[in-house]
Amino acid sequence: MERTNIMLQDTVTMDERTGELVIIDQTRLPGETVFLRLSGAEEIHRAIRTLQVRGAPAIGVAAAIGIYAACRRLPDTDYEPFAREFFRIRDYLAGARPTAVNLVWALERMGRVVRENPGRGARELKALLRAEALEIRDEDIRVCRSIGENGLTLLRDGDGILTHCNAGQLATTRYGTALAPIHVGRERGMRFHVFTDETRPLLQGARLSAYELAADGVETTLICDNMASSVMARGWVRAVLVGCDRVAANGDTANKIGTSGVAILARHYGIPFYVCAPLSTVDMACPDGGSIEIEQRAAEEVTELWYEKRMAPEGVEVYNPAFDVTDAALITAFITERGVIRPPFAPAFQRLFAK
Amino acid sequence: MERTNIMLQDTVTMDERTGELVIIDQTRLPGETVFLRLSGAEEIHRAIRTLQVRGAPAIGVAAAIGIYAACRRLPDTDYEPFAREFFRIRDYLAGARPTAVNLVWALERMGRVVRENPGRGARELKALLRAEALEIRDEDIRVCRSIGENGLTLLRDGDGILTHCNAGQLATTRYGTALAPIHVGRERGMRFHVFTDETRPLLQGARLSAYELAADGVETTLICDNMASSVMARGWVRAVLVGCDRVAANGDTANKIGTSGVAILARHYGIPFYVCAPLSTVDMACPDGGSIEIEQRAAEEVTELWYEKRMAPEGVEVYNPAFDVTDAALITAFITERGVIRPPFAPAFQRLFAK
Repeated sequence: MERTNIMLQDTVTMDERTGELVIIDQTRLPGETVFLRLSGAEEIHRAIRTLQVRGAPAIGVAAAIGIYAACRRLPDTDYEPFAREFFRIRDYLAGARPTAVNLVWALERMGRVVRENPGRGARELKALLRAEALEIRDEDIRVCRSIGENGLTLLRDGDGILTHCNAGQLATTRYGTALAPIHVGRERGMRFHVFTDETRPLLQGARLSAYELAADGVETTLICDNMASSVMARGWVRAVLVGCDRVAANGDTANKIGTSGVAILARHYGIPFYVCAPLSTVDMACPDGGSIEIEQRAAEEVTELWYEKRMAPEGVEVYNPAFDVTDAALITAFITERGVIRPPFAPAFQRLFAK
Repeated sequence: MERTNIMLQDTVTMDERTGELVIIDQTRLPGETVFLRLSGAEEIHRAIRTLQVRGAPAIGVAAAIGIYAACRRLPDTDYEPFAREFFRIRDYLAGARPTAVNLVWALERMGRVVRENPGRGARELKALLRAEALEIRDEDIRVCRSIGENGLTLLRDGDGILTHCNAGQLATTRYGTALAPIHVGRERGMRFHVFTDETRPLLQGARLSAYELAADGVETTLICDNMASSVMARGWVRAVLVGCDRVAANGDTANKIGTSGVAILARHYGIPFYVCAPLSTVDMACPDGGSIEIEQRAAEEVTELWYEKRMAPEGVEVYNPAFDVTDAALITAFITERGVIRPPFAPAFQRLFAK
C-alpha cells in the first residue's frame, strides 16, 4: 500500500478551484488510500449512503459541500427555478441516511441561506452557499483544533494513550475529536504512543484509527478490545481518550459499545478517562444516561465478517448494541472546544450553556 | 446445519468395541458436526497438531486413547518388540504439540504402564494400556463432574451467567470446567441463560462455547468482548464462570486474554467472579501472577481473519498476548473438584495440597 500522510489533506473538503466535494473513500481503507472528487447529486447521495464518508461531523461537512457542488452546476437563473431545484436536491440528499443528525442539521443550515435570501439570483445564491459550506467545514476544523489544544494541557510528551473506536480525523474534517490532541501534538513535534482498541464488531479502531495514526506518523499498537486490561496492568497507558455520540446534562455519555468497560478498567487502574466532546454533542434536554435510547444492530455484524464468513453457529442469539452509556462518575473530565470541564458536570454544563 | 445434542456423546473418547479414538473435529465447528474415528499413529498425530482436538484436558485424553488405539494393531509379540514400537509411537505423538503439558503428561502415564510391566507379552500390555487410557478419560469426566456439582451450589435456577473463551466440554471429555455447572445443571433440568464472550482473536467463545451450549439446549446469547459491561449494567448477569490455564499459590490466575478485564467489570457491578479450576492447574511452585510467563502470539491473529482477509493497515504493530493474569483479589472463589475455595486462597491451597 502506498502510505500517504493524510494529515497533509483534509479527509472531507472542497476543491476551492473546481467547487467539487473531495472525500477519502473510507470503504477502501485500510487497504487503499483513494480520494474521490464528487459533484453529481447521485454520487454524493451514494457516498453518504454507502459509508464512503462516515462519522457524524464528516457527514455534515460532506452534505454542506456536496449540496453546493451539485447546485453550482445549475443554470444561472432567477431565484425561483434555482430554489426549486436546490430544495429538491436537499430533500434527496437528506434521505441518504435518514437518522444521521448532522446530515439534516447541515442541510438545514444550507437551506436557510436560500430561504433567507429571496429574490436573489442563482449566481449570488451560489456564492452565499459556497461561503456557508466553507464556514461549516472551517467551524468543524476550529472546534476539533480547540479540543486538541485543550486536551494537550492534560497530556505530557511521550505519554501512552488508549483510545476506542474512531473519533479521529476520518470522522471529521481534520484532527478529529478523541484523536485531536494526538494530531495537534504531532504538529508540535510531540510524541505519543497510542493503543488502539480494534472495536468489534465493525473494527473502526483497526481499520480507521490505526490507519490514520500510522498515516500521521504516530506510534500505534493495535489490540483486541479484551486486551485493554492487560495493557493498562503493564503501566503503558497514562490516559484514555474517547469521543462521544451524546452527552446527557448530568455527564452520562453514550459512545461506541465498549466505552463504558474501558472507563471501568481505567478507574480500576487509576488512569484518567477523558471524553473529547464538541459542545454540540451535549444534550441539555436529556437528563441522564437512562434517557438515552440505545440502537440495536444486526446479528450478522457479530456472527459474520462483512457478510462473508460465518464465525458462529447458525441461529445463535446475538446482543449487538451500537452504543453503551458510561456513568458520569467514571469520567475524569470532558475536553471541549471551550475548555476542560471537570466534575460536578451538571452545573458546569449549565454555566456553559447559559452564556 | 444438523444440530446433534453433543452431550449425548463424549467429544474425546474410545469406541470400546473397536478400540478406536473418537473425537469431534473442532476445526469444522461451528459449521459441521463431524466425529472422526482414528487408530493410525499418523492420523492421531495430525489430529493433535492441526487442532482437530484442542483444550488441555482433551489433548491428554486423546493422546492416551490414541496411543492405545495405535498400539492395539501391533502384533501380539513378546515384551521387547512391542515395547520398542510403543516408545517409538509415544515419542512421535509427543512431538505433535511440543509445549502441550497434558500431552506429555498423559503419554508419560501410558509409558509407565509399559515400563513397569517388563516381561509381559503384548496381549497383556494392550489390556493394561486400554485400562489406563479409560481411567485417564474417566478421571477427567469425574473431575469435571465434581466441578459442575460444586459450582451448582453457588448458582440458582434461571441465573444469567457470563463466560469467556471455551472451558467447556470441547476442551475436556464431558462437562468441561467453566461450563460444567451449566451442563450438569442441565442434566438436572435447571435452566441458565449464558452470555458468551466471542473471545478475540481466535473466537473460541463464538465458535465453540456458543456451539456446545446450543447443542446442549442451553439458552445462549453471543456478545462481542466489549459488550460485557453493557450486559452487566442491565442486570442480566448473576455470576461469571471462567476456566484457567494456571493458578499461582496466592490465587493469581492466568487464563485466556480478556479474563482480567471481565473480573474488573464483575467487581464494579458487584457480580461474583468464579474460576473453575481442576486442582491440577494450581501450581504451588509459582508464588504469584508476576511469575507467570505470558505467551505472545502472531500479529496476524488480530490483523487477519484466519489468514484470509486483512482487517488492519499493513505494518501496524500488534500486541497479542494469549493470556492475562487476574489478580486474586478480584476472584470471589475457586470451584474445584474438591469443593469451593474462598479467600484467603494461599492457606486454603496449602491445606488442600498438604492432605
